[in-house]
Amino acid sequence: MLQEILNDVGIAVFAASGALLGVRKDFDLWGILTVGALTGVGGGILRDVLLGITPPTSVQHWLPITITLAASLIVFTFHPTFAQLRRSVLILDAVGMGLFATSGAGIAIDHDTSAFAASIVGLLTAVGGGILRDVLANEIPLLLQPADLYAVPALLGATIVGICGTYTTVPVWFWLIIGTVVATALRLVSLVFGWRLPTAPPGRRGHHARA
Amino acid sequence: MLQEILNDVGIAVFAASGALLGVRKDFDLWGILTVGALTGVGGGILRDVLLGITPPTSVQHWLPITITLAASLIVFTFHPTFAQLRRSVLILDAVGMGLFATSGAGIAIDHDTSAFAASIVGLLTAVGGGILRDVLANEIPLLLQPADLYAVPALLGATIVGICGTYTTVPVWFWLIIGTVVATALRLVSLVFGWRLPTAPPGRRGHHARA
Amino acid sequence: MLQEILNDVGIAVFAASGALLGVRKDFDLWGILTVGALTGVGGGILRDVLLGITPPTSVQHWLPITITLAASLIVFTFHPTFAQLRRSVLILDAVGMGLFATSGAGIAIDHDTSAFAASIVGLLTAVGGGILRDVLANEIPLLLQPADLYAVPALLGATIVGICGTYTTVPVWFWLIIGTVVATALRLVSLVFGWRLPTAPPGRRGHHARA
Repeated sequence: MLQEILNDVGIAVFAASGALLGVRKDFDLWGILTVGALTGVGGGILRDVLLGITPPTSVQHWLPITITLAASLIVFTFHPTFAQLRRSVLILDAVGMGLFATSGAGIAIDHDTSAFAASIVGLLTAVGGGILRDVLANEIPLLLQPADLYAVPALLGATIVGICGTYTTVPVWFWLIIGTVVATALRLVSLVFGWRLPTAPPGRRGHHARA
Repeated sequence: MLQEILNDVGIAVFAASGALLGVRKDFDLWGILTVGALTGVGGGILRDVLLGITPPTSVQHWLPITITLAASLIVFTFHPTFAQLRRSVLILDAVGMGLFATSGAGIAIDHDTSAFAASIVGLLTAVGGGILRDVLANEIPLLLQPADLYAVPALLGATIVGICGTYTTVPVWFWLIIGTVVATALRLVSLVFGWRLPTAPPGRRGHHARA
Repeated sequence: MLQEILNDVGIAVFAASGALLGVRKDFDLWGILTVGALTGVGGGILRDVLLGITPPTSVQHWLPITITLAASLIVFTFHPTFAQLRRSVLILDAVGMGLFATSGAGIAIDHDTSAFAASIVGLLTAVGGGILRDVLANEIPLLLQPADLYAVPALLGATIVGICGTYTTVPVWFWLIIGTVVATALRLVSLVFGWRLPTAPPGRRGHHARA
């Protein structure tokens, strides 16, 4: 029950981040609702397509998309307020990321994937919505740009669930909690301290080969 | 039979819109054929992936892609003429959108989805090709930009099929006709009167939270 | 055995092309690894989603993604060297393209698709990773731009496997070899001679219809 509520909070926060980008790009109401909805449920749909769950949960049931529309409408109406809420939004987003990563890995395990696959699916569940948001808004995904750690905590949380949930006899729900806490905490700590990954060493830029 | 012909017309019109964008972006022949084909069949492939129909109908059978290639070749050869045909193209496109929305919803119902899922799948069938076209051409999808109503009529048509086709005893084909007519008519009326959805109220732009 | 090794070489070369683009776009280490990994395995994942193979092979097994990460790390560290290796990279890439096109078509046949579907799936396997790479890097896919032949050889190789593997009694592995050699050779010859496809005839640009 708690996990479902937190998952819905994650969907709402992701949707709000998509709707905010839509507002900044001067989309109309429909565009804002669309990019909000796709950001909120995109990661879960990608997860389900990779696992062969059809139709995807977020398409089959009305609640997830309804949550994204409500969150997007709130952003549409009150978006100037969100500038002051930046800190709260970042915290909620970190929680949402952690929940998506671990629940994605847990659902993969339920579908008898390998531990490796569970980790990858969990990662893609956490970052898929944000990638879709940025591709639709015609921007290079934030995920690929030099920035605070985001995908690394997601991968860590998903891997904890994937490996420990597969190879230990401890119930999966225990690893869901551990993974979520670790991922969320690492994300928040990296924000506070401004941790970053290195960029490529300078030098003559390699020629871009066609592929 | 009539529905199949109209569906093929819809594929051709969507393909032509993709090929036209390719011409304007100075793609070569292959690029124009590719973006035309993906625009024509992209919505149907998305529909089938979401419903677990593999391989997707447009991949399995040769006719849909062949139609898109023929339409794209015609655009490639005669594209200056299409400027004069703008009105006809818009009308055909409205019909194609209506048909894709309702047939997508109908196919979803055949696969035992919820009424909600049928509506969403129908919407995505109608707009998927256009989104793919714009993402490939590195433009913000027209769907997200302030513009005449497009997705709203598609959603309305798909919802009529999804809800009435699931919860009434009237045969689905009846709702396919009603939904297509309503979606197409609403699209055309909105074009004539220039109806639009509101954009976000002005104000200090909300800060874009990472997600 | 040889085919698996060559396939892994193809994955590595594709991943390197993605990582090189990441370096040029100033992505951080994570971004470079991500775009490298998605370029290397994107075509195979698309193939598996279209064929209903879930989870996709590259998600389920650890080797493909590990190869992409190793290749991307090498590019990250030694990228200035790659400018001098341009010729070798182009040759390896042509081999990878040929292998992906034919193996994609062969796997489709194994899943009882039509000969037409096998050709399309082979083509998409060969070009899917590159399209994903360019979309994520916010560039128009190279595939759509006037350039040396790339997708045409891929389609030819995939079609040889798709048609001959379906309608003849000669074992499929024979057509895999023929198709790969033909696709790779045509690609290399077109590079040497600078063969290109025509662009649209000039004239007043057609108006871009909404779809």
